[in-house]
Amino acid sequence: MKQADIGLIGLAVMGENLVMNMESRGFTVAVYNRTVSKVDDFVNGRAAGKRVLGCHSLSELVASLTKPRKVFMMVKAGQAVDGMIEELLPLLEDGDVLIDGGNSHFPDTIRRTAYVESKGKLYIGTGVSGGEEGALKGPSMMPGGSPAAWPHVKPIFQAICAKVEDGASCCDWVGENGAGHFVKMVHNGIEYGDMQLICEAYQLLRDVLGLSAAELHQVFKRWNETELDSYLIEITRDILAYNDADGAPIVDKILDAAGQKGTGKWTAIAALDEGVPLTLIGEAVFARSLSAMKDERVRAAEVFPREKVSFTGDREAFIEDVRQALYAAKIISYAQGYALMRAAAGTYGWNLNYGGIALMWRGGCIIRSVFLGKIKEAYERNSTLENLILDPYFQKTLQGLLPAWRNTVTAAIRHGIPAPAMTAALSYFDGYTSQRLPANLLQAQRDYFGAHTYERLDAPRGQFFHTNWTGEGGSTTANTYNA
Amino acid sequence: MKQADIGLIGLAVMGENLVMNMESRGFTVAVYNRTVSKVDDFVNGRAAGKRVLGCHSLSELVASLTKPRKVFMMVKAGQAVDGMIEELLPLLEDGDVLIDGGNSHFPDTIRRTAYVESKGKLYIGTGVSGGEEGALKGPSMMPGGSPAAWPHVKPIFQAICAKVEDGASCCDWVGENGAGHFVKMVHNGIEYGDMQLICEAYQLLRDVLGLSAAELHQVFKRWNETELDSYLIEITRDILAYNDADGAPIVDKILDAAGQKGTGKWTAIAALDEGVPLTLIGEAVFARSLSAMKDERVRAAEVFPREKVSFTGDREAFIEDVRQALYAAKIISYAQGYALMRAAAGTYGWNLNYGGIALMWRGGCIIRSVFLGKIKEAYERNSTLENLILDPYFQKTLQGLLPAWRNTVTAAIRHGIPAPAMTAALSYFDGYTSQRLPANLLQAQRDYFGAHTYERLDAPRGQFFHTNWTGEGGSTTANTYNA
Repeated sequence: MKQADIGLIGLAVMGENLVMNMESRGFTVAVYNRTVSKVDDFVNGRAAGKRVLGCHSLSELVASLTKPRKVFMMVKAGQAVDGMIEELLPLLEDGDVLIDGGNSHFPDTIRRTAYVESKGKLYIGTGVSGGEEGALKGPSMMPGGSPAAWPHVKPIFQAICAKVEDGASCCDWVGENGAGHFVKMVHNGIEYGDMQLICEAYQLLRDVLGLSAAELHQVFKRWNETELDSYLIEITRDILAYNDADGAPIVDKILDAAGQKGTGKWTAIAALDEGVPLTLIGEAVFARSLSAMKDERVRAAEVFPREKVSFTGDREAFIEDVRQALYAAKIISYAQGYALMRAAAGTYGWNLNYGGIALMWRGGCIIRSVFLGKIKEAYERNSTLENLILDPYFQKTLQGLLPAWRNTVTAAIRHGIPAPAMTAALSYFDGYTSQRLPANLLQAQRDYFGAHTYERLDAPRGQFFHTNWTGEGGSTTANTYNA
Repeated sequence: MKQADIGLIGLAVMGENLVMNMESRGFTVAVYNRTVSKVDDFVNGRAAGKRVLGCHSLSELVASLTKPRKVFMMVKAGQAVDGMIEELLPLLEDGDVLIDGGNSHFPDTIRRTAYVESKGKLYIGTGVSGGEEGALKGPSMMPGGSPAAWPHVKPIFQAICAKVEDGASCCDWVGENGAGHFVKMVHNGIEYGDMQLICEAYQLLRDVLGLSAAELHQVFKRWNETELDSYLIEITRDILAYNDADGAPIVDKILDAAGQKGTGKWTAIAALDEGVPLTLIGEAVFARSLSAMKDERVRAAEVFPREKVSFTGDREAFIEDVRQALYAAKIISYAQGYALMRAAAGTYGWNLNYGGIALMWRGGCIIRSVFLGKIKEAYERNSTLENLILDPYFQKTLQGLLPAWRNTVTAAIRHGIPAPAMTAALSYFDGYTSQRLPANLLQAQRDYFGAHTYERLDAPRGQFFHTNWTGEGGSTTANTYNA
């Protein structure tokens, strides 16, 4: 039997498209699917005449691979992955590589890497972004796992992934065990944030200025020629121009109730666990939940009828303000996402290449944008940048955007238009750049009711004080003492 | 040996104070502590001459109890509780009651209730709030677990708990398995929110108007005589008047870096899991994290020097605006917290008494306030109220507060003062009362890049459509079709 370069398990759309992609780059791919008829349908259909070997069992698949074997699992995240690992391990030899290309939760990938390595095999958990089209034409890929596995899969991954203008690959080694899936998770969280920001800008222009879908199409078309140039602005432009069979814009007929699949939520939870303020993505996740409560909102809107506030300013200036607010908030969103990755790198011992991550996201995936090139440059200037907004380029940019950003958020508040993500981003900016926050009072409260102690401005950090605020209880009588 | 009404394990401050409280109400309490010398110290010291029986082993403790035995564990949340359950189970008889009074995470309590019941015993996981002082003088108690256990512990719990003016007990049965610890967790989350709101009001008055601690003391003193009358406003008033040995306000010397113990985070995660927008508490948790990044903030403040915006309006009017904004945002915070409990009740099959919960929080605990009486009344008017702000009293109140709330948030934005919780609350209000949100665009985006489908305004709910936006790919050519 002919030997294949890699095996792939799971012939749903993403899996099939990845096979076609790998084959188109010259690789021979062995394929297997639990419902075996899918294998035959694929090999005799879409993959007919291609370097694709159909296998009717896992052992047949494994037997058809060159060593060290590389087995790409494209099965449903969760227990199906664990089950597949159990089935494959006895068939593999030491040094073979198991690859999980699904949307696995990173703690699972951490656990699985250790487990597979304990059996003498190598493991890769890789984020694959770009949807069906990306899988076929060039996805963004974020692989992590066993470092020893990377040289074996690198030629394949970097052949099939997206490329940016200068030919650089949107795939590079992310880090050990769950690092790849973590970075993919943050990618998805950022995607939630980007989409929410676009929605807020859209609603502001729709409800404050009363722009039609056709007018909004023109606005997003112009915006896509600015720093906002990105896939999501591009498809927003196109969506706004898409008319239904009756010639009316289809966007106006779609129910305003968002779905979600959970990766945004994972990102917010990871931020809570790391103690990293990820307020914009948090608001984006909650905004989807709020939108889904459509019937309840309709009832609430009756109880709280809205006064229509008419717009009196310069309409073009307002459109530009909203654009700048969107850009400013987007910078904050990425700054928060990068801060989360930085914290997680510390927690999990990953040596993340932040510029490399920006490059991986630069093409192929849903959040691809020109903007990510600027982030890559920032981390090339300073690979240990504490926060993205402290980079000179972003610092200068944000300073310039600040007036428009404040105007936009103020207008949203005056008109009663919810702009939770733009607003949360501004609160974060104002908090992050505050030398002094009111947490001194909060620490006093905690010490008052729970004797949690506090630090002082006039004492070294790490020295804790308690005040006997009420003069009652406790065995201490001194005003303050070291606790 | 004399028989005790209840046994208590764990003689840290909270445990000791609960013993003293129970004893003061006429109950005989057997006590045990792993470090046995603590038992003797307590019995010969603070508890000398009281109805407190010192025990040097768990079996001695169990042997000293009237049946059905009630054993109150006040041990560290986590594995210590599981370990203690394992030690106690073989010593107990069927129908005996194990009580966990620590800050356990509610999923643990769900699991432990099932486990203990499977061994023929009964289990209670109870929230106990009010800190050391509350434990001694009357805490707020939120018991859940095995319903059959409640009649046995009710006379003790309702004797020792806090009472409100009309004598009603701040303790009642919450619901099955983890319901009590869930409600306690939400209490703690709300506590985070309340504290954050007070801090934002404090910072606005301090940094916009330049009020001194002494002036702020007067403000909070006045506020405590309004609808804001509450324990946290009261202690804020007192903290602001507390001077250090040198006569300067101690609050001005405390480092603005907040600590946290994790229950706020749990609440935010539970909300993400339930898909309930809990934005204010989320911001409050993140605000603590942001405050703790003191050194980084100081560096960021240098990179983004703040322009001082001078205040030109009516100072007294601004103070009143801030008060009203605080009250409005507080209403939203509780509305969100109650919505979370409502959702969890559905998920876990709890039959929660929302008015009863307001009563439990009305006294004894950190968030106790006159305001909770209004919430109790709202749920008495309508026990299935969909959202607190839809209650006629709160609807009318919020309508009245809205102008001041918008003014305050706008002022915060103009002056560059972060007010994340007040602002997030307003975004939520504007979103919740929006008949139409921009999620129609978001659903179009999701359908565009991921074929996630959407519903339509002109079609029944539950009917899903997909558009072939690009005209490429996929096997469908129709504009829209049912997916």
